[in-house]
Amino acid sequence: MTAAERTPGAPRRRGRRPGGADTRATLLEAARAEFAERGYEGATVRVIAERAGVDPAMVNHWFGGKETLFTAALDMPLDPKALIADLLPGDPDGLGERIVLRFLTIWDHTGGGRRLAALVRSVASHDVAARMMRQFVGMFVRRVVSSVAPDQVELRSALCASQLVGLGMVRYVLELEPLASADHPTVVAAIAPTMQRYLTGSLG
Amino acid sequence: MTAAERTPGAPRRRGRRPGGADTRATLLEAARAEFAERGYEGATVRVIAERAGVDPAMVNHWFGGKETLFTAALDMPLDPKALIADLLPGDPDGLGERIVLRFLTIWDHTGGGRRLAALVRSVASHDVAARMMRQFVGMFVRRVVSSVAPDQVELRSALCASQLVGLGMVRYVLELEPLASADHPTVVAAIAPTMQRYLTGSLG
Repeated sequence: MTAAERTPGAPRRRGRRPGGADTRATLLEAARAEFAERGYEGATVRVIAERAGVDPAMVNHWFGGKETLFTAALDMPLDPKALIADLLPGDPDGLGERIVLRFLTIWDHTGGGRRLAALVRSVASHDVAARMMRQFVGMFVRRVVSSVAPDQVELRSALCASQLVGLGMVRYVLELEPLASADHPTVVAAIAPTMQRYLTGSLG
Repeated sequence: MTAAERTPGAPRRRGRRPGGADTRATLLEAARAEFAERGYEGATVRVIAERAGVDPAMVNHWFGGKETLFTAALDMPLDPKALIADLLPGDPDGLGERIVLRFLTIWDHTGGGRRLAALVRSVASHDVAARMMRQFVGMFVRRVVSSVAPDQVELRSALCASQLVGLGMVRYVLELEPLASADHPTVVAAIAPTMQRYLTGSLG
């Protein structure tokens, strides 16, 4: 429900609810609405907590902060800060390889297929999810790409996203062989050079 | 309804229905069921027409044949025979470029976004659609790839599919800029080398 849709004069949930089994779900719902309306930068933990009718401390309790809340709201099984801290150090020419390997590790180990299929359905069905996914790429992918890209950071980010999304679709959702069950070294050898060119190579 | 699910003794639709406004839709529905149950090779125009309760001549009238019926059932806006006839002639080293350009032309000109989003939702929601899409890649993509690939035709086909699916998702479904509105030369320059490596290059 957006502010505009709220009936004028209708009571707004302001009471603090105790942290409990449904607090996490309520927070996620409020976060999705708030991120969709205001974007990642505009949304605040305070307003999301207020919208959910819980204490802001609950956000840190359940999610550790705004970034993790955002990826949880997208149902992405990752911690952006940890991910960036893992990926960036090291040879810039090996970043493509590190990204592909990390992508495979994350999705292989978290029931990739069903979870990714749900995410894809959501992105293809709802503007809110598509907008959140654009924000995700705009923030996290862009942050990783800009650490090594010599120019055209936006285009390089979108290109990296295109190959990762396509790999996810083919391996986990379509389950197209031999990519669906290929081992990590095979997939990395084939796809890492593509990622590396999108990161640091010539785009033509 | 599969043959096994049909109640024994229940009447089977065998009567010919006149060709009309709903014949096309009925044929598409029967085709999806038949392709899903028997696969592309196992399905026949005769059985699909019988299942739809129409004359087999109607299939040729509405679709021109089994291949076109198949892509229509997948809601892919293309004629596989014409596509292959267009793509294959010419320099094998330019095939990656021809594929990317053709992909953009087809989806840009057929209301790409909505149509592709519907296809993606369907593939991510229904096993039948995912199975049909695997068959599509197995037949048409494989046929194009095998015309130039020195080896590993299956892997190369899946890799080509991954980059095309990802480009479609990012440009038309996520609408991620600058890829969403980049002109054809920009997209081709960035992505054609990837396709070409997947077609004929070293996979590591």
